[in-house]
Amino acid sequence: MMNLPLTVGAMLERAEKFFPKKQIISRTSTKVSRLTYKEIGQRTRRLASALANLGVSQGDCVGTLAWNHHRHLETYFAAPGMGAVLHTINIRLSEEHIVYIINHAEDKVLLIDEDVLPLIEKVSDQLKTVKAFIVMSDEKILPESTLSPLYSYEQLLEEEDEKFEFVKEIDENLPAGMCYTSATTGNPKGVVYSHRGIVLHSFAMGLADTAAISESDRCMPVVPMFHANAWGLPFTATLLGTTQILPGPQFTPKLLAELIESEAVTVTAGVPTIWLGLLNELEKGNYDTSSLRAVLCGGAAAPRGMIKAYESKYNIPFLHAYGMTETSPLVTLSRLKSYQENLAEEERLEVRSMQGLLVPGLEMKVAGAAGETSWNGEEMGELLIRGPWIADEYYKDERSEEAFQDGWLHTGDVVTVDQEGVIKIVDRTKDLIKSGGEWISSVDIENALMAHEAVFEASVVAVAHNEWQERPVACVVLKDEFKKTVTKEDLREFLTPQFARWWLPDDIVFLEEIPKTSVGKFLKRALRDQLKNHFVH
Amino acid sequence: MMNLPLTVGAMLERAEKFFPKKQIISRTSTKVSRLTYKEIGQRTRRLASALANLGVSQGDCVGTLAWNHHRHLETYFAAPGMGAVLHTINIRLSEEHIVYIINHAEDKVLLIDEDVLPLIEKVSDQLKTVKAFIVMSDEKILPESTLSPLYSYEQLLEEEDEKFEFVKEIDENLPAGMCYTSATTGNPKGVVYSHRGIVLHSFAMGLADTAAISESDRCMPVVPMFHANAWGLPFTATLLGTTQILPGPQFTPKLLAELIESEAVTVTAGVPTIWLGLLNELEKGNYDTSSLRAVLCGGAAAPRGMIKAYESKYNIPFLHAYGMTETSPLVTLSRLKSYQENLAEEERLEVRSMQGLLVPGLEMKVAGAAGETSWNGEEMGELLIRGPWIADEYYKDERSEEAFQDGWLHTGDVVTVDQEGVIKIVDRTKDLIKSGGEWISSVDIENALMAHEAVFEASVVAVAHNEWQERPVACVVLKDEFKKTVTKEDLREFLTPQFARWWLPDDIVFLEEIPKTSVGKFLKRALRDQLKNHFVH
Repeated sequence: MMNLPLTVGAMLERAEKFFPKKQIISRTSTKVSRLTYKEIGQRTRRLASALANLGVSQGDCVGTLAWNHHRHLETYFAAPGMGAVLHTINIRLSEEHIVYIINHAEDKVLLIDEDVLPLIEKVSDQLKTVKAFIVMSDEKILPESTLSPLYSYEQLLEEEDEKFEFVKEIDENLPAGMCYTSATTGNPKGVVYSHRGIVLHSFAMGLADTAAISESDRCMPVVPMFHANAWGLPFTATLLGTTQILPGPQFTPKLLAELIESEAVTVTAGVPTIWLGLLNELEKGNYDTSSLRAVLCGGAAAPRGMIKAYESKYNIPFLHAYGMTETSPLVTLSRLKSYQENLAEEERLEVRSMQGLLVPGLEMKVAGAAGETSWNGEEMGELLIRGPWIADEYYKDERSEEAFQDGWLHTGDVVTVDQEGVIKIVDRTKDLIKSGGEWISSVDIENALMAHEAVFEASVVAVAHNEWQERPVACVVLKDEFKKTVTKEDLREFLTPQFARWWLPDDIVFLEEIPKTSVGKFLKRALRDQLKNHFVH
Repeated sequence: MMNLPLTVGAMLERAEKFFPKKQIISRTSTKVSRLTYKEIGQRTRRLASALANLGVSQGDCVGTLAWNHHRHLETYFAAPGMGAVLHTINIRLSEEHIVYIINHAEDKVLLIDEDVLPLIEKVSDQLKTVKAFIVMSDEKILPESTLSPLYSYEQLLEEEDEKFEFVKEIDENLPAGMCYTSATTGNPKGVVYSHRGIVLHSFAMGLADTAAISESDRCMPVVPMFHANAWGLPFTATLLGTTQILPGPQFTPKLLAELIESEAVTVTAGVPTIWLGLLNELEKGNYDTSSLRAVLCGGAAAPRGMIKAYESKYNIPFLHAYGMTETSPLVTLSRLKSYQENLAEEERLEVRSMQGLLVPGLEMKVAGAAGETSWNGEEMGELLIRGPWIADEYYKDERSEEAFQDGWLHTGDVVTVDQEGVIKIVDRTKDLIKSGGEWISSVDIENALMAHEAVFEASVVAVAHNEWQERPVACVVLKDEFKKTVTKEDLREFLTPQFARWWLPDDIVFLEEIPKTSVGKFLKRALRDQLKNHFVH
């Protein structure tokens, strides 16, 4: 067979050749543009040419600080198309982390949305490798800025060559993209995506048995393009000539609902928070969402009630997926097997609310307390993944050793696998309670507690214990109206019929508030610190 | 990203792990078996182990002479699974060519259907490399045979290890499969398929935008497993856990219709002749074909009337595809683009009856008389293809030089490409008439002639001409009842309004019969020889 490399550039070329009339609908802070793949192709080639003229060489990183819009999409292909590396930067990170990331990746050029300029202006004197800034604005006129040299995206394009040739005769294992993922402690960790990985991931997303992205779709990635390449959708959609709807900055549930209706969106993707917001909006307004064939949901577990509301109330099929920055990100997707379609509705929902089946092309293993676990829906273990779109290291980072062992990515997610091979995430390894050689899922107990009418929030953590190594302690915030009436004993009684005796928390501690991370997740580390001597008497 | 190779073994492993209960329904000459992927997996591992014990080493060829059944499927994975090469041999070839193929590929072991044994017995003394024969029969008892050593497939499996480990840590570019394709003259030419090529082709076949093979399908390849890996369907279906229905030897249109109904087949694949036969059967019988979502048709152009009959009369979607042994084989597929769905029915049929759009992952070029052709639906040129599942040579064959140039496969097919990028095959390069620097399609004139009520068969060939280099001459067989009444002039008059003047044949020669190849195609070479001095006076 021919030794032809899989390249990102070739994906856009296909759209240019076969789908030149298909559109990208792009919302920026000032307007909505409609460009064809032919135009996107020409503009991408101009940008690639501009990057080369700015001194970007093969293997250099090109950073982006931008929302979901057509200029970001053009950069997705221009950087790898000219042999450089697309480095998408999470604009929600702290200034300190953004500075770290840019210096660590050694970004040569930064492409920045106009509303993000102030952030970079503040830290520009700390950036060690950046040689040029490009502002991604609808205007050719440069805004007032302390950044230098600063170029206007549209002005740059005007001066460049729309016939610039993409680099295609390269080693497909060379880097094409990069994204940093937040760590529990310390600096974010860099993940490098190869041309091969991106192309294979795009094929995987187009399979009838996964997300089934198709030319006939109208695809709206709500997940930011700085989060694991917006789950690879901009790449996949381009490969297939799919119409893309890019919702731009500061979108609201109302705007999303309006876009779904006006642009007849067929497939969209985002985290559960987005879909909770949209659900509220759908309750309020009167929107036509009949075009939607799938809502892809990942990043965190989607509540079962929400999946049910979408499917039964709005007839919108909900596709629960699982992945992480390290995995490009698609790992599993919760489609039913053909013979599961006959299950009762509640059972179907049960399967659909789990993380799903491993997609073709990847391999998995579940490492439990005593070797590989059985697929019985009960035994817990850490999910290990390998495959051609899974990272094999963190970029120049000592923390690689822990996560990548013997050719497997250790996801840090604790899962059970049922007899059909369907994965359910039950905890993070670091939050799991290891009691006398057995494992207890903190998440399961939390979910049970939060189903009690008096409980506002609950977080269950491991506390060191002389006899059992660790034992669970539940931290509970009661709703105001129950604060005087509900006791530890009430909650313990409520839990007792639901769990094995040894799973029950040894203590329940009432708090006024559970400490949280900047993105609103429970800060279990703080709770563990607080309770570390709880059993020391 | 991880440097994990794409391997054939890993595809079966996925089915074993995630779809162990799904079935392979297999018809042999004596019975119909139903085996699960779990059983197929165990049996495949036993076979792989047996091959190793018979002395097959990495890179050795394992030949098959077999119809479509589960043992053939097991061999599809056992040979590459243990590092050897699956060599499927076309049992319809001449003895001489079969001997050439086996010796040229240096097959170490031959797996043979019981009804094919006599063929191999006759030539066994000419086979130079074969060390063992295995008869693929439902029985463990060996039939009477002069072949030696001869093993029973089922007896062999019984003695082997069902936990045999597939070779997965190999270079994905190593050979996994092999198939010889007939040449116009001389011996068949060998095409080698790599692990990488087979896996990528399988992904391509599973895309929502191509054949969309899915776990929920019930897939019946009618195209023989010795023809370009049954278009890759056994590989794709296994990767996705799809139910497979293998129709075995000597099937009839009636049997196919019955299988479609009884096994609720959703997708099937074969050449136009098969679908003409099935269409006749559907007219006669009363079959429920409502399960069918797609009939894949390739190998030759499907008549437009047939496509229409399937779609409008039986509501069976017809998917016209194009490929060849050298291309694994999927190259194009005639799906409509989303915005073409709005065309009038006849226009849709027009598009659908062409060969279609290039599938993702491949690249094409059309080389006309004066460089690359325009996509205007008129300019003709030879189709050139490249990509990761396209062969880069014929195995140890001098004829490689002609077909593989500058990294492109020269298909020998002359095509036009319309403005949407849809390919239509208009001729074979060797049958094209090159008249005064312009090209004339022999096929177009033949089709026009055959639409005349008096014409039974017509073949148009190039004849050497002093002034124009070549000019077309039409060879026509009239239907008996018109032999005395219809003249050359009548036919010329019939053609005149349909073509440019310079396309019209310089002469029309009436024959009693058009010489044909062993598979029923017009033997144009013989006609050209016969007419070579037609314009020499």
